Amino acid sequence: MAMTLYWGSGSPFSWRVLLALEHKRLPYESLRLHFDKQEQQSPQMLRMNPRGRLPVLRDGDYVVFESLAVLYYLDAKYPARPIFGTGPEEAGVIMRVICEFQAYAEPSVSQIVEAIFSGDIGREHGRTTDAMHIVAREARTLEGRLSKERWIVGESYSAADMVVFPWLQLLLRALGRGEAAELGARFLPIERNYPALARWIERIEALPNYARTYPPHWRDA
Amino acid sequence: MAMTLYWGSGSPFSWRVLLALEHKRLPYESLRLHFDKQEQQSPQMLRMNPRGRLPVLRDGDYVVFESLAVLYYLDAKYPARPIFGTGPEEAGVIMRVICEFQAYAEPSVSQIVEAIFSGDIGREHGRTTDAMHIVAREARTLEGRLSKERWIVGESYSAADMVVFPWLQLLLRALGRGEAAELGARFLPIERNYPALARWIERIEALPNYARTYPPHWRDA
Repeated sequence: MAMTLYWGSGSPFSWRVLLALEHKRLPYESLRLHFDKQEQQSPQMLRMNPRGRLPVLRDGDYVVFESLAVLYYLDAKYPARPIFGTGPEEAGVIMRVICEFQAYAEPSVSQIVEAIFSGDIGREHGRTTDAMHIVAREARTLEGRLSKERWIVGESYSAADMVVFPWLQLLLRALGRGEAAELGARFLPIERNYPALARWIERIEALPNYARTYPPHWRDA
Repeated sequence: MAMTLYWGSGSPFSWRVLLALEHKRLPYESLRLHFDKQEQQSPQMLRMNPRGRLPVLRDGDYVVFESLAVLYYLDAKYPARPIFGTGPEEAGVIMRVICEFQAYAEPSVSQIVEAIFSGDIGREHGRTTDAMHIVAREARTLEGRLSKERWIVGESYSAADMVVFPWLQLLLRALGRGEAAELGARFLPIERNYPALARWIERIEALPNYARTYPPHWRDA
């Protein structure tokens, strides 16, 4: 098999590439590395990505990393079942929505998730509450888009959905913890506060081979 | 004229798009907005970009913002004189280097520049010094690339150069201030510490129409 994806369970960056590979129906060898054993920092992995980060995609002799670059490469190399739309205009909107998510939502989602999983939610209360306000506002914008369309950009499942979805799943998982109840009160239940987002999550969960992308260590827990 | 770029002087995000438009030799109307008058937040601008940020590109009826999305759109719409390489493999590397810069260098460069221009360099001493270490390390990686090749990725001037260059110019401008002397001592003079980066800057400054992209308020000062 020509293509190998090296990925880590629960990493939103890895998950988006798994979603893309499954959507594009590309054959790939799936190599899960274990963060707790620092397998992503092995000499073999550092030769491919000196930063020791995942995901890494190897396609024959070619190596690419940084998840957005992997998505971009996959779509340029294998244009069937496109994930960046069907023309320059749509491609621009998809990339714009991804850039907006990365610039305005991702840092806050990441901060909330880290605060909850590290047990720092009490100590970091002020900062985490601020981050939650930002996330709620960005989620409202997405809710607006998804109340008019089935997917985040236009009529097709795209890289924009693939970039946002894993972070939202991670956020919901974190907010579901008992100690995050107060923080999550404004966000959960998502079916009531963000009904269009909730239906969009179900839509992605119903995609063929979704189960192959789901973090295995979440299933075990 | 079909295309209009709304931009702000000294914004590295605006500058990269100006570099791309000039490189691609595309005709455009250049509309400079003034941050100090908050012109980017006028009702007309907010209709195009509700976040009130620059740059914004209008191409006929189509509007795109977020600088990386603008670069991506321009290259997809007007493929001549490409800025994302000539094939999927090169495109992947260019996008990867841009993502790395945005994830690992940009936040620190931005922090240093803000600390210096806001006069907070004394109060923020520890954080700014840490940021400078990160920037020095990332610059070392770029220096390595540029000591082997004329451009950041491969043999052609690309979006990777356009993304990095304005931030580096902004950093040099900030470090050149008297109060930043200690902070800049490890970095400056760039000709001695990063000779390949210095030659690369000269190469970009020598490009046709470079002067049209140079922040006008830097010239006045």
